[in-house]
Amino acid sequence: MNSFTKVFQGTAFTSASPKEVAVLQDCLFCIDEAGMIAKIVHPEDDAYNEILQEYKNTDAFHRFEKGTYILPGFVDLHVHAPQWIQAGTALDIPLNDWLNTYTFPTEAKFADPTFAKTVYSDVVDTLLANGTTTALYFATIHKEASIILAELCAEKGQRGLVGKVVMDDPEQTPEFYRDVDTSTALAETEEFIVAVKELAKKTKQGVYPVVTPRFIPSCTDEALQGLGELAAKYDTHIQSHCSESDWAHGYVQERFSKNDAQALHDFGLLQEKSVMAHSNFLNDEDAQLFAETGSAIAHCPVSNAYFANSVIPIARFMAMGVEIGLGSDISGGFSPSLYDNTRQAVISSRMLEDGVDTSLPADQRGVPNSRITINEAFYLVTAGGGESLSLPIGRIEEGYAWDAQMIDTTIATAHLPIYGDEGSLMDTFEKIIYLTRPENIRQVWVQGEKVHNRS
Amino acid sequence: MNSFTKVFQGTAFTSASPKEVAVLQDCLFCIDEAGMIAKIVHPEDDAYNEILQEYKNTDAFHRFEKGTYILPGFVDLHVHAPQWIQAGTALDIPLNDWLNTYTFPTEAKFADPTFAKTVYSDVVDTLLANGTTTALYFATIHKEASIILAELCAEKGQRGLVGKVVMDDPEQTPEFYRDVDTSTALAETEEFIVAVKELAKKTKQGVYPVVTPRFIPSCTDEALQGLGELAAKYDTHIQSHCSESDWAHGYVQERFSKNDAQALHDFGLLQEKSVMAHSNFLNDEDAQLFAETGSAIAHCPVSNAYFANSVIPIARFMAMGVEIGLGSDISGGFSPSLYDNTRQAVISSRMLEDGVDTSLPADQRGVPNSRITINEAFYLVTAGGGESLSLPIGRIEEGYAWDAQMIDTTIATAHLPIYGDEGSLMDTFEKIIYLTRPENIRQVWVQGEKVHNRS
Ligand SMILES: [Zn+2]
Ligand SMILES: [Zn+2]
Repeated sequence: MNSFTKVFQGTAFTSASPKEVAVLQDCLFCIDEAGMIAKIVHPEDDAYNEILQEYKNTDAFHRFEKGTYILPGFVDLHVHAPQWIQAGTALDIPLNDWLNTYTFPTEAKFADPTFAKTVYSDVVDTLLANGTTTALYFATIHKEASIILAELCAEKGQRGLVGKVVMDDPEQTPEFYRDVDTSTALAETEEFIVAVKELAKKTKQGVYPVVTPRFIPSCTDEALQGLGELAAKYDTHIQSHCSESDWAHGYVQERFSKNDAQALHDFGLLQEKSVMAHSNFLNDEDAQLFAETGSAIAHCPVSNAYFANSVIPIARFMAMGVEIGLGSDISGGFSPSLYDNTRQAVISSRMLEDGVDTSLPADQRGVPNSRITINEAFYLVTAGGGESLSLPIGRIEEGYAWDAQMIDTTIATAHLPIYGDEGSLMDTFEKIIYLTRPENIRQVWVQGEKVHNRS
Repeated sequence: MNSFTKVFQGTAFTSASPKEVAVLQDCLFCIDEAGMIAKIVHPEDDAYNEILQEYKNTDAFHRFEKGTYILPGFVDLHVHAPQWIQAGTALDIPLNDWLNTYTFPTEAKFADPTFAKTVYSDVVDTLLANGTTTALYFATIHKEASIILAELCAEKGQRGLVGKVVMDDPEQTPEFYRDVDTSTALAETEEFIVAVKELAKKTKQGVYPVVTPRFIPSCTDEALQGLGELAAKYDTHIQSHCSESDWAHGYVQERFSKNDAQALHDFGLLQEKSVMAHSNFLNDEDAQLFAETGSAIAHCPVSNAYFANSVIPIARFMAMGVEIGLGSDISGGFSPSLYDNTRQAVISSRMLEDGVDTSLPADQRGVPNSRITINEAFYLVTAGGGESLSLPIGRIEEGYAWDAQMIDTTIATAHLPIYGDEGSLMDTFEKIIYLTRPENIRQVWVQGEKVHNRS
């Protein structure tokens, strides 16, 4: 007798390595009480029929019909939850103006907990509907609203990692949107950490407090130092922005005569559970420091096109052993969908490899060997995200959480171009990654629990 | 007494110029029997109440509810209809291999009219569901299947411009997929033109035969010459590929010691109703020739990332007065959605402006003044497409066809982030362009007739 709480039968795709996708065809996925994948049984395994007989007429059993496929839930390593209200707007202006004229006034509204609850509820629902089962969120400077975001993740079943944002430097932040002072910023961060750790005790899928200096330009040295210490004291995740644009990169050089990476490291902010958004302008030494400390890059390809003045050399950093996942960067990136970002990650890498300027000869136009394949982009959005967060997520594999999305390729209004027996299952995989719409994402699970369902 | 066949009340967005979007707020859009916009009446106009009273309790009247908006139908200037079956696959290989190993075998299957009917039916439905009201199609070399595609457009109400593809040069085409010989290719093209012109007589929205040499490398001089003559004889549209990649550009230089543009012109293939896909490597002289002859560029930004080795300088060519619209280039581009291509057009232009290689200083990285705004990309996908085809489409304006899509921003499963009175109608416009999913496209009309409806 087995004691699985759920047994799913169907076909799944999961990364076997950064370059290879494994097809788990018509397997049994056996889930335990904690929501973990306890066992994956292949049709040729001895146990297959035994388990099938035991479960197939029970409520615990679910068979995925022909034309439906399982993918790991996606991991969004960089979302500004409050910015959802301005997604898709004001993308024609530079980063610094965009922050001061649009974004800071937007975020300031989250002083109102009622408003925060309305918007954050919608953000979590929207990301789940797009197949994002884990999200690493920037909230705002407001402790109360940030706790509300963590509570909504807990309640709706998303694995949320949430940061109360710190920005205390009067030189680089507007009076209407700034922490009261450095010691208040640190005290409220600590209260926030304690509150979310308390909440986590009764949350099956986990919620996590994240130490969150916005980025170096908006924080004083004292705040950065204090946040490094808080992260160490409570063993939390850490997130910030790193070397995003020419401006940001240059600012840090001017202030510290070093690059972001080294500066962050000196404040104790680069460690195994650190995730740094963008990181486009890391040099090899910086990237080495990321690899050594286990710090991860949240690559946000849609956003980068607007604000990063470049394409990050992902293939190069992958080869150096840096942990990398994908981020939507709402609303620097307009899309709440990591499918869009997976596609753009491939596209941007091609543009880096081939270059852009037709007036240059082909051999001077781009940066050779920069492309990543669709398999590699899929790795980033799933397994790479899990590794970045040091959590057992992002793979359909024993010992990993059952965080999964069921893609229905047969939906009448958005069916994928799959005709009879044309093509292989790997063709189907590629069509899923390139063509899935939210409509096709029929069911989503986190830690074994169903959190999204479209009929 | 007026004699409109339909009167719509609601808010529409349409291009006032390449840089400006007009908001037609709460107007009456009065459609005549031919499906043309006979009159647009603003709330402050004298006739407003009179027309409203006359129509509001009749079947001809339709009011768009709060949260829904009208856009012009999108114009897809470059779609390979047969390639829909392989959309999203095999994008990791170079153009030449991609053609010979994947695409030509795919297209060869359309010798079977039954298969063609199944796939083409799905293509037309899919494009309509994505808001594409007019499409300029490459079919295959098969006359019968190409006529079937035109018939399906006629039947389903899409404005289809369809080409039977010519590729007769044994040096650059495989034996299993090639016109029998040059004279057969020309004779079948002429029969195809006559058949589609006959079909057009009973098709309200219009269907059009298009002279379609695949691209110079696959055609003999005799075929190119003969096709130019057929286009002149029957006054048809013309389409081909032009200067897409380093390889294609180099091939034509080697064969003719001139660029694609001049070679096409010498064969009579550049004229007012010509649309050339990609055209990334046009030099200024080539672009000038396009502007002078009224030939248009079908810019396919998603596809270009995979096969064009560059970003086309759209802002530069717009400033030179070249007609430009957007194309999905299924399946060089994976997406059937021109929303995706509109977004990518903006993104790619930003990458051209800023450049991609982080190891270069900012002032040597990109090509200044290359970005286009979201308003300009919207112009390309609507009005620019109409101008490229020399048809009165792509604008919500008197004298233009009522080709329109109704976007519902309130759909529960895919609602846009619009909260109460936050933001302006222009913010809503930007959110629509960046965030609309097929789900949000509730109704689509072509030439005054409803052709797509989601309940
Ligand atoms: Zn960010
Ligand atoms: Zn093409």
